[in-house]
Amino acid sequence: MARRISAASADTKRRLADAALDQFHLKGYVGTSVQDLVAAAGAPKGTFYNHFASKEDLAVQTVRRYSDTFRVGTLTDPAAGPAVERLRRHFEALVATGLSKAAQRGCMIANLAGEVPAHSPAVAAAVAEHLEKWTAALTSALDEAKQAGDLKTDLPSPDLAEFIVNAWQGGAVHAKATGSLKPVHSFERMVALLVR
Amino acid sequence: MARRISAASADTKRRLADAALDQFHLKGYVGTSVQDLVAAAGAPKGTFYNHFASKEDLAVQTVRRYSDTFRVGTLTDPAAGPAVERLRRHFEALVATGLSKAAQRGCMIANLAGEVPAHSPAVAAAVAEHLEKWTAALTSALDEAKQAGDLKTDLPSPDLAEFIVNAWQGGAVHAKATGSLKPVHSFERMVALLVR
Repeated sequence: MARRISAASADTKRRLADAALDQFHLKGYVGTSVQDLVAAAGAPKGTFYNHFASKEDLAVQTVRRYSDTFRVGTLTDPAAGPAVERLRRHFEALVATGLSKAAQRGCMIANLAGEVPAHSPAVAAAVAEHLEKWTAALTSALDEAKQAGDLKTDLPSPDLAEFIVNAWQGGAVHAKATGSLKPVHSFERMVALLVR
Repeated sequence: MARRISAASADTKRRLADAALDQFHLKGYVGTSVQDLVAAAGAPKGTFYNHFASKEDLAVQTVRRYSDTFRVGTLTDPAAGPAVERLRRHFEALVATGLSKAAQRGCMIANLAGEVPAHSPAVAAAVAEHLEKWTAALTSALDEAKQAGDLKTDLPSPDLAEFIVNAWQGGAVHAKATGSLKPVHSFERMVALLVR
């Protein structure tokens, strides 16, 4: 019996975490209540705090989980092939994600970056951590591809990486505001022109 | 007496509008209540709805007012000098604004673009209108400067304009999330390299 309760409990926790990924992305941090999450997860009322210390605690975990899906680490992993190929695959994956989600949801990181600093230093710190990690990995891969002679750009890697990360974030919220994928297509073309 | 009441009323409306500009920028649309606005404006309780139909109505007006401060029209105004000079002054003004506000507040347009579409189609439309207007004016000025022979870039103007607008938006939320002006400085350097 204890095992069955525990399995049900783990399932509830997983459904709450999935609901958080969906709801925070769509509606933001302040715009998503614990009651919204419980309802979206179809979880028994009153169970939320069995699994998470607070909405803020769940939001921090959600940002880290979302960040992990970007697989930023593969940008700097030599086992994943030459840096120029890693960069190409990274941008392809990014654009594919954008095409499937940006017009309805934007990018969860960008949405929260603009919203949470006045409401939760902990969530803002998790967002900042993702942005810094991504920018650093992109800078490193750009440097590596240049050193291998595979890129002809003379744009400085740290600024180019920062500009690309920021153009992605801005393009995603732009897509969300307009409901159009035009900014994602434009991003794809510009990255092909800048990282060559 | 009627005139004195009317002057007091106009003053209350102005203070509510100023509070909206400040609070929506800092805390977002959902995170700012009518009560927050009334308190920040030091306005008599219950007067809000004498001046605005709703929080949403005030937010739409606030986005339009914020948009006007960017003076996007000067980008395409021949009386404001050669296009290359208009572009230079536009980016200087943008960077100055970013240096004064982005680390605490980001860019109000970007903040709201990522937040409001799930909460207010009207506010999202006002945000989208600003982004489209800005991108179009920047595209036009870039084309004009190229035709005058003042730019050597071969990057296509519509994509370059979109990328710059988006990098600005993303840089502003990045600055807000990290509390650092690094993305603004990076934006300044990259624009100098791309628009030349």
